[in-house]
Amino acid sequence: MLRSHTCGELRMSHVGTEVELCGWVQKLRDKGGMVWIDLRDRYGLTQLIFQEGETAPELLEKAKSVGREYVIKAKGQVVERFAKNDKMPTGDIEIKVSELEFLNKAEVPPFVIEDETDGGDDLRMKYRYLDLRRGVVREKLQLRHKMMQQTRAYLDSQDFIETETPVLIKSTPEGARDFIVPSRINQGQFYALPQSPQTFKQLLMVSGFDRYYQIVKCFRDEDLRADRQPEFTQIDCEMSFVEQEDILQIFEGLAKHLFKNVKGVEVGDFQRMQYADAMKFYGSDKPDIRFEMKFVELDSVAKGKGFNVFDASELVAGIVVPKGAEYTRKQLDAITDWVKRPQIGAKGLVYVKCNEDGSFKSSVDKFYSQEDLAEWAKLANAEKGDLMLVLSGDLNHTRKALGELRLEMGERLGLRDKNTFAPLWVLDFPLLEWDEESERYHAMHHPFTSPKTEDIPLLDTKPGEVRANAYDMVINGVEIGGGSIRIHDRSTQELMFKHLGFSEQEAKEQFGFLMEAFEYGAPPHGGVAFGFDRLCALFGGSDSIRDYIAFPKNNSGRDLMIDSPSEIALEQLDELGIGIKEGAKN
Amino acid sequence: MLRSHTCGELRMSHVGTEVELCGWVQKLRDKGGMVWIDLRDRYGLTQLIFQEGETAPELLEKAKSVGREYVIKAKGQVVERFAKNDKMPTGDIEIKVSELEFLNKAEVPPFVIEDETDGGDDLRMKYRYLDLRRGVVREKLQLRHKMMQQTRAYLDSQDFIETETPVLIKSTPEGARDFIVPSRINQGQFYALPQSPQTFKQLLMVSGFDRYYQIVKCFRDEDLRADRQPEFTQIDCEMSFVEQEDILQIFEGLAKHLFKNVKGVEVGDFQRMQYADAMKFYGSDKPDIRFEMKFVELDSVAKGKGFNVFDASELVAGIVVPKGAEYTRKQLDAITDWVKRPQIGAKGLVYVKCNEDGSFKSSVDKFYSQEDLAEWAKLANAEKGDLMLVLSGDLNHTRKALGELRLEMGERLGLRDKNTFAPLWVLDFPLLEWDEESERYHAMHHPFTSPKTEDIPLLDTKPGEVRANAYDMVINGVEIGGGSIRIHDRSTQELMFKHLGFSEQEAKEQFGFLMEAFEYGAPPHGGVAFGFDRLCALFGGSDSIRDYIAFPKNNSGRDLMIDSPSEIALEQLDELGIGIKEGAKN
Repeated sequence: MLRSHTCGELRMSHVGTEVELCGWVQKLRDKGGMVWIDLRDRYGLTQLIFQEGETAPELLEKAKSVGREYVIKAKGQVVERFAKNDKMPTGDIEIKVSELEFLNKAEVPPFVIEDETDGGDDLRMKYRYLDLRRGVVREKLQLRHKMMQQTRAYLDSQDFIETETPVLIKSTPEGARDFIVPSRINQGQFYALPQSPQTFKQLLMVSGFDRYYQIVKCFRDEDLRADRQPEFTQIDCEMSFVEQEDILQIFEGLAKHLFKNVKGVEVGDFQRMQYADAMKFYGSDKPDIRFEMKFVELDSVAKGKGFNVFDASELVAGIVVPKGAEYTRKQLDAITDWVKRPQIGAKGLVYVKCNEDGSFKSSVDKFYSQEDLAEWAKLANAEKGDLMLVLSGDLNHTRKALGELRLEMGERLGLRDKNTFAPLWVLDFPLLEWDEESERYHAMHHPFTSPKTEDIPLLDTKPGEVRANAYDMVINGVEIGGGSIRIHDRSTQELMFKHLGFSEQEAKEQFGFLMEAFEYGAPPHGGVAFGFDRLCALFGGSDSIRDYIAFPKNNSGRDLMIDSPSEIALEQLDELGIGIKEGAKN
Repeated sequence: MLRSHTCGELRMSHVGTEVELCGWVQKLRDKGGMVWIDLRDRYGLTQLIFQEGETAPELLEKAKSVGREYVIKAKGQVVERFAKNDKMPTGDIEIKVSELEFLNKAEVPPFVIEDETDGGDDLRMKYRYLDLRRGVVREKLQLRHKMMQQTRAYLDSQDFIETETPVLIKSTPEGARDFIVPSRINQGQFYALPQSPQTFKQLLMVSGFDRYYQIVKCFRDEDLRADRQPEFTQIDCEMSFVEQEDILQIFEGLAKHLFKNVKGVEVGDFQRMQYADAMKFYGSDKPDIRFEMKFVELDSVAKGKGFNVFDASELVAGIVVPKGAEYTRKQLDAITDWVKRPQIGAKGLVYVKCNEDGSFKSSVDKFYSQEDLAEWAKLANAEKGDLMLVLSGDLNHTRKALGELRLEMGERLGLRDKNTFAPLWVLDFPLLEWDEESERYHAMHHPFTSPKTEDIPLLDTKPGEVRANAYDMVINGVEIGGGSIRIHDRSTQELMFKHLGFSEQEAKEQFGFLMEAFEYGAPPHGGVAFGFDRLCALFGGSDSIRDYIAFPKNNSGRDLMIDSPSEIALEQLDELGIGIKEGAKN
């Protein structure tokens, strides 16, 4: 090694030792006769000292000539510091340098390499290797490493076998859009990159692997949003001979293990909630239950009083904002504007202030008497000093908008603390959901999810009401993972494909291998997949998964650092037997 | 869980316990009044028993109706066996079944699911999920899992950070052929799948990550040979502030850790050999040193005696086969035919028998006296009873052919025991190698490998003689891993690209980001990558990496199970702005 120690390990006990350190120049302080250099590596910072009288003049000059981010090697003696710094672990000592070598010089970086930086997003993406030098950024990747280690430790202890599944697989039109890979040896044919190893992990169950896991890259060619990446990482798991309860137990165990061993936090048993209740009380299949503020349905007391807007609505529902009666007219107008934004899409907002004196003041006083409003308040358990915010309209949109408003109010009231973790299982998802665009039912989870046996008769009559053996793990309003008990027999799988609009031919072409596998002795099985990037972000207290990926892509799917995707040589396309279409937008 | 225990865990201490087991029917023995079923899962086999008088008649009938590979659940009591079987861990007990449930029936499998099977390669590839049920196959994947666990345990203990690098990267013409991925959002542009995370791991060093590792999928679109797969797995590592010796120590440590913790084998310190010596004495850069049989160069004694073939040769060299003097004429002819096969390509073979009586018998007696041959034998340390096999011709071809012959003779003599492990570092590889086809020098390792400082002046005069700071780990004649100390400054990297025939423009377009990174403070660094599939095969005592991959592809890059690659919908191609060329072979 070019060094005898790292920049994070020297202490008082090392005083008097000759050491060699390597690292980056974090800071230079030049007081003329005295020069200090803060030397940085992954493990910490150590102060180097050079002083007139003790340091050879050429060496002092050399020390003065270092620039920020120079890579240097310093040899010297560990001495006790005159002015100790108890904020850094090495703050009791410094190195009296006797030899200094420049291992590599550095240009002035395009942005400041400190926890607080002046670099914008694009600049930091282009020079990601410099951004990763910042302590706050590197720590995120170190957290990710620890999350991986602890995930494996837990799953290994539970007899899961880590098994790699292929990356070059087969394209299927179901689900999101695939990335495809032209085959050179089989021209005109294509591989696809996996959106998940779903069918392979099920085949491993058919193989008797019993318990499988993998921390694995998956791919989706979607139009990107801020928190999506074309390639992302999943903790992917599957188990045989299990019922839903077993899976909930094992993977609640995983989450608890991670909270304990990575965050040092003990979380209690997870709350459980029906999908239907999540929608009814939180307007979301991933409710943030760090705070209460559940929906109250007011139809019974709000309809039939001559207010047309409510009378014509499928749902009238509200939330109670504690101590909100103090809100000014201006504040209430701002909230009204907020719900009317296109992202939320409410037509308007009704408020009811529950004044301290027992009276009510609402935006619909024209239609509702004090007694009427007292009934609302009673139904909603609103107390003196509280504020009720009420939305109305068709069921789904009203719930969705009210759910957003609930989150916004929780945020404004400081009820969504990043260091509080409120985990939850959402259970009994619908099997199918209606897709407006294609005018047919799609699998809500995926086509391999089993319906609840007792609901199978509904498939023909009310497909939207069939419940699945499907569950999501939700923490702080973020969907961290989801899974299901799978179909494991051919006839149910065929029935499912039929209801999803596959012809027999299509089902066979795309998933024939799986249905055939089910005929050779497939065990009952089920599993789960966790979004690993998001899980890391949650643990790190961040909303953005991008910070937790070493080399992320931007919202156009570009890697700004290596400048990819890029054009390639015509010969390469020729070899593959493909060409770029004229008029392809570029 | 549908079961209370696995099929591998019940012992005498469980006798009397009520248990529930799930698994596959391995075997049914029906003796009329008595039926035994061997129930199998990943953990083992347990015997179920049903007998007239004790078992209800319907249950006995049901037991008789099970077929091979049925998935069943059996409830019953653990009882001591009458005839114990000490070959199976559960052989002391059996289950007196009271309830039997068919969880899934099974068609008759297309091949026998036992360690010895009647299924051919293609059939087993198509039904890989059934092949994986065979104990011998599943054990290979379990070995792989253990190798991964132990690799991570070692590298974690050495402060390496596991970091994921991107799969969608940029195509570069250097090296093997890339798989490419058309971009939909950026039509006309392409991602490439990584042949290795080389540049990313170097950038992580520039970022100060200090020690990086990853067990990662890599991709090469090559014409496939038996032991190549288009996607393969690498243990990929990089370290900063190191010299070659540090890397050799750390990764020799990894190999020793794996031998000890996976195989229970203590291997001593690795032998080390110069590349030049490996070629001179073994004709290979990956010598199998489980046996000696080094080359002897005979030019000094074999040339100038009137034998034109030798006189016109650049090299005359041989190996000594112990006790080979007994070989019959027929055996020698067979060996001669073997070296003349096109794969070996020797023009002929000269032999010298060192008879027990001290005389010599050679195929070139016409040109060489007994004294001449005695000189050969002396030079070669051949003893009475030995056989010398001699090849000649130009240097490289002769060495290569003699190397193959050496391995073949070692094989025939039983000197290549799969349970003996002879590890070796091959050091000081050439930096460049001449490529006949493109008539230019290529990087032997890759363009980021550093030349030995003292050899840099040779770059302009004798580029082929420049040695690199590059090393390979070789075990039993198999290249398990390789790496190098990298270039870490822009000017050397530019010099390297120049010598590889890159224009300044090309170098900038393809690797500008890396060269720029070197200007912002790049530390000295180096690393290594291990072929993980091959390492697993070596540990498992197999020549074929395919057995150690859960879902391998065949030699045409096809996955016979899912039938991929396959044609895709025209709309998918349209969205990507690409088309299949007319006349593309298909």
